[in-house]
Parts: sequence; structure tokens; C-alpha cells
Amino acid sequence: MPYQVKPWKLISSVPALEEKWFPVRKDTVELPSGRIVEDYFVWEAPHIVKVIPITKDGKFVVCRQYRHALAKILTQFPAGAVDKGEALEQGARRELQEETGYTCNELVHLGSFAPYATKMTGITDIFLAQNATPNGEPQYDDQEETEVCLMTAAEIWKLIGQKEPHMIDLPAALALAEHYLQSTPQK
Amino acid sequence: MPYQVKPWKLISSVPALEEKWFPVRKDTVELPSGRIVEDYFVWEAPHIVKVIPITKDGKFVVCRQYRHALAKILTQFPAGAVDKGEALEQGARRELQEETGYTCNELVHLGSFAPYATKMTGITDIFLAQNATPNGEPQYDDQEETEVCLMTAAEIWKLIGQKEPHMIDLPAALALAEHYLQSTPQK
Repeated sequence: MPYQVKPWKLISSVPALEEKWFPVRKDTVELPSGRIVEDYFVWEAPHIVKVIPITKDGKFVVCRQYRHALAKILTQFPAGAVDKGEALEQGARRELQEETGYTCNELVHLGSFAPYATKMTGITDIFLAQNATPNGEPQYDDQEETEVCLMTAAEIWKLIGQKEPHMIDLPAALALAEHYLQSTPQK
Repeated sequence: MPYQVKPWKLISSVPALEEKWFPVRKDTVELPSGRIVEDYFVWEAPHIVKVIPITKDGKFVVCRQYRHALAKILTQFPAGAVDKGEALEQGARRELQEETGYTCNELVHLGSFAPYATKMTGITDIFLAQNATPNGEPQYDDQEETEVCLMTAAEIWKLIGQKEPHMIDLPAALALAEHYLQSTPQK
């Protein structure tokens, strides 16, 4: 120790749950130790785009939405799955408009992140949307009821500091936005 | 708009994938619109504890580990599932010792976070471990090969800034640690 970590070898892969909204595969893998694991499950989760919208006066546009696995209403930045054949930026603009009714000019890509890289394939690409502007009503479906709020960074950090569960994306995305804004001269 | 978002009603729940390492349930729910959704899948994921270890001279102890769903070696803070009947702090100390060989005195709870609150039940509790000290060899199993590294906050932010996937926990946990350290007088 320390030594270089080695990747696992994928031996085979079969579907374990063939559901459109929740496909799971079962992999047989060979560990670096030589041991074979025959039941390593991976959820083939969707590619997500997340947008951090900031208005001209420096307020963040956030969404309060019901999240069923936690059975709680949580505050988060607008996000959703990329449609088939859709470019990431295009998906980000669509989700921003659908969930908040806001549009923006330039989008800045802040990075690609895995929510749970052990057992989920999905990636979340995070974009910053400066000068976000209201542009009509949100147009979400009935699984995505959204209450749109404007919050300062300090208000969001205070919310995160309350000892109840938040989505891990909330501090991650806010910190990424603040790092970008601090390191980049603003127009 | 804006209006108060309403929770969904759980009508019934049945197992969809009965696997010890990946239990998935299928819920029938009633949306606030009155529409019934009969196939809302939820992965009943484990409760995770994550530790942000900082040495006396301000270096972060991080782990490089292979993450199979992404098929990549990623840098992250030590973490793992809480054992049955184990207190969160106890689990955090155990994971710290097992994955890095470090121990610490006081742990500070920085919050509870959901990696994916739509479709995963799991919560990640994040602890800060100041004055982390080497205390023997790591003792992980062969699914958790770990290369332990010491990095400054600036080095971790630089790594995050590289446009390859990272775990979303990395910027989240680092930002939470920095906020705590900046707002709390250090002993």
C-alpha cells in the first residue's frame, strides 16, 4: 500500500429486471483477486441533465418537487432525463423551460457526475444558466408537479444546513456554480 | 403557479426484484392529479455513511476505487453501508478504518443526503473526521480495493474540474466540509 487499483473483468451480463422505467442487469465479474462474483446488479439508469438557473440579480431558480422514494418534498435545481437523440444542451434548455418556465442564453457545462457509480450507470451533466428569464408557464406532466422558488446562495446553504435529507445534488451543484462564478470574470 | 406541491398516495407495493444485493419494489401510487400509476419502481438501497477525513496538516484522505457501473476508477471519500444494528457514527469509524487505515477522534455530522430521491430509498450520512491519523493497514475485502491518497482541497477541486465523470458526492462532501470549517472556530 498504496498500490494501483485494477478494474474488474466483465464475464457476462443478463437482464435481471426488464422494465422500461427500471431496467436492471446482472453481471458476472472477475475481481482482481481472481474471485468470480456471479450476481453484481447494475441499474441502467437514464442520462440526466441538471440546470442551475441564475437570474440577472443573482437569485437561483429552484424547484420544490415530491420525490417518491423518500416520500418527501425536496428543493432541487431543475433536471430530467435526456430524450433519445437529444443533445445535452438541448435537453437542459427543455428541462429548464418545462420545469420552471425560464429560458436562458448561454449554458456553461460544469461537469459530468455519477449519482451512484457502484450500481447505477446514469450520469448527470450539470449546466449553469446565467441570466435566466421567466418566459411563460412551466409545462410539466402530473408526475413532476413543481413549485418554482427564487433563492439566494446563502438561503440554499442555510436550507442544506437543516438536518433533514436533501438531494446530494443540491450542495454539489451549488458549490460547482459558486466555484465557476468566483473563478470567471462576469460579463 | 406557484402553488404548494402535494405528496403522492401509496396504494400498494409489491417486490419486483427479490435479490439480497438489489431489492426493487413496484409501487402503485395515486398522483395529486388523481391519475393512478401502477409501475413506479423503487430500489431499496442501503443506508450509507461517508467520512471526510482531514489530517492535522489539512490534507484530505481520499480513496481511489473501481466503480463497476461506470467501469472506471474514481476518487472519493471513504464510505460504505451501515451494518444492521450499527449506529451511524460507529459505521463511519468502521468504514474509515477499513478503507483507509485511519482513525479519528470527534466526528461531526454534516447532514443526510439522498443520492437519487426519485427512485432510490438510500440515504448517505456525511461526517467530518478532523485530525485523522494513520492507524495500521486498511482491511477491505476484494470488492473494495482501495488506493489511499492525501490531497489538498485545491487539488480535489482541480480534479473535479477535469471533464470526466466524478461521483456527485465528491464536490458535495468537499463543499460541506469547507463550509463547516469556514464557519466553525478551529481548536
